[in-house]
Amino acid sequence: MNLDILLQQVAFIHEIDKIKYIQRKTRLFNSDRTENDAEHSWHLAVMALTLAEHSNEPIDTLKVLKMLLIHDVVEIDSGDVFLYDTIVNHDNTIAERKAAKRIFGLLPAKQAEEFIAIWEEFETGDTPEAKFARAMDRFEPILQNVSNQGGTWTEYNVPYDTVIEKTRKIQHGSETLWDFTETLINDSVEKGYIKKTNDQ
Amino acid sequence: MNLDILLQQVAFIHEIDKIKYIQRKTRLFNSDRTENDAEHSWHLAVMALTLAEHSNEPIDTLKVLKMLLIHDVVEIDSGDVFLYDTIVNHDNTIAERKAAKRIFGLLPAKQAEEFIAIWEEFETGDTPEAKFARAMDRFEPILQNVSNQGGTWTEYNVPYDTVIEKTRKIQHGSETLWDFTETLINDSVEKGYIKKTNDQ
Repeated sequence: MNLDILLQQVAFIHEIDKIKYIQRKTRLFNSDRTENDAEHSWHLAVMALTLAEHSNEPIDTLKVLKMLLIHDVVEIDSGDVFLYDTIVNHDNTIAERKAAKRIFGLLPAKQAEEFIAIWEEFETGDTPEAKFARAMDRFEPILQNVSNQGGTWTEYNVPYDTVIEKTRKIQHGSETLWDFTETLINDSVEKGYIKKTNDQ
Repeated sequence: MNLDILLQQVAFIHEIDKIKYIQRKTRLFNSDRTENDAEHSWHLAVMALTLAEHSNEPIDTLKVLKMLLIHDVVEIDSGDVFLYDTIVNHDNTIAERKAAKRIFGLLPAKQAEEFIAIWEEFETGDTPEAKFARAMDRFEPILQNVSNQGGTWTEYNVPYDTVIEKTRKIQHGSETLWDFTETLINDSVEKGYIKKTNDQ
């Protein structure tokens, strides 16, 4: 046994435990309790397993799972950024890249490179796997908000145009899930959970 | 789009949210807070990705991840059973099989069959993938207990022989991880976290 390798891997396993304390804005299904990043990552991974057939393009499911399981690890250092935040841009910030380097850097060098490459691919969002993984990341809070009488949409008064703008990326991963999402969003407008901008 | 298929899948995704409320006995790393089944499942999946090279036999990592991501879903109906429980047997109870049928049965028929087969394979524990997945399930609480001055070992006064008996299954998945586990357990005996039976 190469003990050094194993000790580095155990240090990484220990460190990432911290995402269980990172609270998102969205709440569990039919619930007032906010979701943490570990719960979120688990749910997205099972969603990907369940919904893979709806991907626009053929995908390597293992790669999608890798992306979803580690995509939020950087938030240990950089914190969760709310999807509908109007000031902070979520994607590819300098803080997140620095966090990736530090946290994945706990692993043996070759494995660190591999994990960082997977994370970068997810963040860039260009490959079929990244598009589908990102669709999962957008789709979960929609289901949660629908189950919570509008959830973060009503709580933060997010207008219809912004909801569409922020969730449309689902279409890049799955036209089927986007069609379904549009139905859910329109239904949420009818129920008064989401306001069209010109109603305000 | 076959809306029926998608609605069944969404019903499953909604239902399994409940594992976020199922508390285990073990606590997070360096923490008093108990871990829930969603956090646990996420951590095991990342551990499998990280430690796959230590498997005794070649493994299909995707299958291992599937097992770990869904293995605790049955606890929505049957509840968490503590590894060191002296009365209730964790594995393959009638309640768990009934739960698997109900919960995975929310999915479209073919997918339900596939998920149940994966869950059964994990529970039976005979294949290289199941052996490695089960090793992850045993290894995480060891790391957690070590970080928590003995954790459930001291809290429930679990004797050395029982710790060895319950964790030895790690060896079936990975000799390397078992060697490391034995070192951690012996160290925990020295520190007084685990008592040898004849000391009691």
